[in-house]
Amino acid sequence: MENWLKEKLLELNAVSTMEQPEGFNRLSFTEKEREAQEAFKKVALELGMKLRADSTGNIIARLETEDQQGKPAIALGSHLDTVKNGGGYDGAAGVLCALGAVKMIRDSKEILPFPVEVICFASEESSRFSMSTVGSKAMTGQLTEEQLNTIKDENGSTLAEAMTEFGLDPAKFKEAERGEEELLSFTELHIEQGTRIEDAGCDYGTVSAIACPIRMHLHVNGKAGHTGTTPMDQRQDALVDAAEIITFVHEAANCLNENDDFPIVATVSTIEASPNAMNIIPGFVKLGVDIRSVSDKQKNLMEKAVDTYLKKYRPSVEKEILVRNPSVQLDRKMYGKMKTLGHQTGLKSFEMESGAGHDVMNMQKKWPSGLIFIPCRDGLSHHPEEYASPQDLLKGTRLLHAHLTTSNSG
Amino acid sequence: MENWLKEKLLELNAVSTMEQPEGFNRLSFTEKEREAQEAFKKVALELGMKLRADSTGNIIARLETEDQQGKPAIALGSHLDTVKNGGGYDGAAGVLCALGAVKMIRDSKEILPFPVEVICFASEESSRFSMSTVGSKAMTGQLTEEQLNTIKDENGSTLAEAMTEFGLDPAKFKEAERGEEELLSFTELHIEQGTRIEDAGCDYGTVSAIACPIRMHLHVNGKAGHTGTTPMDQRQDALVDAAEIITFVHEAANCLNENDDFPIVATVSTIEASPNAMNIIPGFVKLGVDIRSVSDKQKNLMEKAVDTYLKKYRPSVEKEILVRNPSVQLDRKMYGKMKTLGHQTGLKSFEMESGAGHDVMNMQKKWPSGLIFIPCRDGLSHHPEEYASPQDLLKGTRLLHAHLTTSNSG
Repeated sequence: MENWLKEKLLELNAVSTMEQPEGFNRLSFTEKEREAQEAFKKVALELGMKLRADSTGNIIARLETEDQQGKPAIALGSHLDTVKNGGGYDGAAGVLCALGAVKMIRDSKEILPFPVEVICFASEESSRFSMSTVGSKAMTGQLTEEQLNTIKDENGSTLAEAMTEFGLDPAKFKEAERGEEELLSFTELHIEQGTRIEDAGCDYGTVSAIACPIRMHLHVNGKAGHTGTTPMDQRQDALVDAAEIITFVHEAANCLNENDDFPIVATVSTIEASPNAMNIIPGFVKLGVDIRSVSDKQKNLMEKAVDTYLKKYRPSVEKEILVRNPSVQLDRKMYGKMKTLGHQTGLKSFEMESGAGHDVMNMQKKWPSGLIFIPCRDGLSHHPEEYASPQDLLKGTRLLHAHLTTSNSG
Repeated sequence: MENWLKEKLLELNAVSTMEQPEGFNRLSFTEKEREAQEAFKKVALELGMKLRADSTGNIIARLETEDQQGKPAIALGSHLDTVKNGGGYDGAAGVLCALGAVKMIRDSKEILPFPVEVICFASEESSRFSMSTVGSKAMTGQLTEEQLNTIKDENGSTLAEAMTEFGLDPAKFKEAERGEEELLSFTELHIEQGTRIEDAGCDYGTVSAIACPIRMHLHVNGKAGHTGTTPMDQRQDALVDAAEIITFVHEAANCLNENDDFPIVATVSTIEASPNAMNIIPGFVKLGVDIRSVSDKQKNLMEKAVDTYLKKYRPSVEKEILVRNPSVQLDRKMYGKMKTLGHQTGLKSFEMESGAGHDVMNMQKKWPSGLIFIPCRDGLSHHPEEYASPQDLLKGTRLLHAHLTTSNSG
């Protein structure tokens, strides 16, 4: 099984070695994402699964007997797109272990009393567009026409335009929504992207809740001018103002962590300066800020701290909210079941929250959903050196297999 | 004359109105720069001047009688390229007033005892490549093969590649160098890009020296990671480090100004963060720093302050020097002559230094050179709202005309 996992990991990543100094670049709705999806389809076909794609690019592989057609399924899944210069495990590990669990079912010739689906969600990462989990939003009826037509990549292409270029018809995006009766539950496996499981001496993480981000753009307005002829005391340098905001966001998040049990993280993760030329004082800077905590109260406090700072010190900065979603509590029964999988597999569960968003947070809105984490080396993720060991991938596969074999059809 | 200047200003800028909300974008060695050069040639031909282009794209228009062929000329000139979203006067005003001075000579049917040249220098601005004054460097033998082959624009094209694409042969760049015997002197007119002339109640500025920049890239290394899952106290956020450096550069320049008679300006004018994605902690940031003063001592103190700061607080930052040229003293005789033009024209001269580099600083290395400034509104430059009034353009034209009519052939 371990060898099969290693082999299919390379296939899903379309590489001959996972050592990729530049990492992986399967941005949303690009040919690179499609390449991984095609590899997924090939593996699913080898496992005797039926395939279909929906109108927003999600690929659904289904294992069912003849008399299970049309019956509600137990679904597993994750995504195959990556961030820029990302790793080959974020998303891919979940898809791989789900396929691995199906292979274990096939190998044992067991017939489950329900169909099993492995869903490969489209465009989970927000690296290309500032919105994440496009595919699972669509599948759960949370994608809107406004999002399709207004959210743009750095070249100015809208989501709808990118989908069209990808060969999809964005006008049909609503057809991707599925009825509640189609699934019994959904479970995602993901790499932890942190070191808490390992630090606690455990094998896997069972996740109770997901810290959804507040995301904003801050538009910092200054005045462009010649760098050589504008005296220091007559400047309105937007980058100097932006630098103070970056420092403030970092320090404010540190302070909020000292006063509350729920950790919070806040990051100025993107910056664009204009005109960004050596001899011109920056006249305009756009900052992208990402704030996360499972505690909505903490997130709101952080946003308020930014508001107060800007009002007091930089009143001309314009704030544009991109995302402000409440954090998501996962289904309590599914959470309990994920924990007990440890007993069946002899693995030790660590109870935790997720600092990152995942497709499961959308699926939870419609179906009882669970999330388990497997460790990744040094907690490193969104990075070429991201790595999960074959042993941990095998543990993840066994957990998902145990989940399937201990579930029932009602 | 004023109407002629207004009309030719529009022609040189290839527009029907100077109100351009997005400004002008005639970057080095692009079709837009060529368009302006073609307009320049048309006007020069109308004035009965002979035209030639050299191997690096400088255009030289020459007014001479038959028996003045091959004789040393008095040269005027400036450039027609612009920064990104720049104004239509930086460079263009100097070319226009020089052409205007030739027109005044032609209109008065005066025959000067020497040829007159108006030089339109190629690629003066450093917006596309991090090096300025390409054309005048070439004309004075200061351009090097290494610069041509190593300095790149943001798309990775070298200067040599850009020149080839522009239709030039970069292998022939040395042919652009001119012999000392070809010119008697060079004078550039430019907009001030500041408000000191106006603040002093004067009409024009006579410039004694030019503050050449020290320019560097600072490579700030952090560690990319997931914004949601990496705790605040386990981060190496390159943008947070970069923000502190930006703040330091600004404050250090302010401090140096309090302790010295020579003003200094220092600007972090460019920033590139990587991977620059909403959900990834910035792992790498490149800053572009521009330091200027007519006092080389002040510039060196500023660079040393940056070095000390980095060594103490951010030892992993790598410094890459792009330019470190001593500031340039202009010819004392030419400086004196530019001042006395005020008497002949009834205009009031303000004696000053230039905070910005201009083609004249290269020309001074080979020929006695002078620089005069005309005011521009609010000191605004490198900006779409850059503006010099028709009255000031006329004053500049009269100054250059007076310079020509009071010069002699030896």
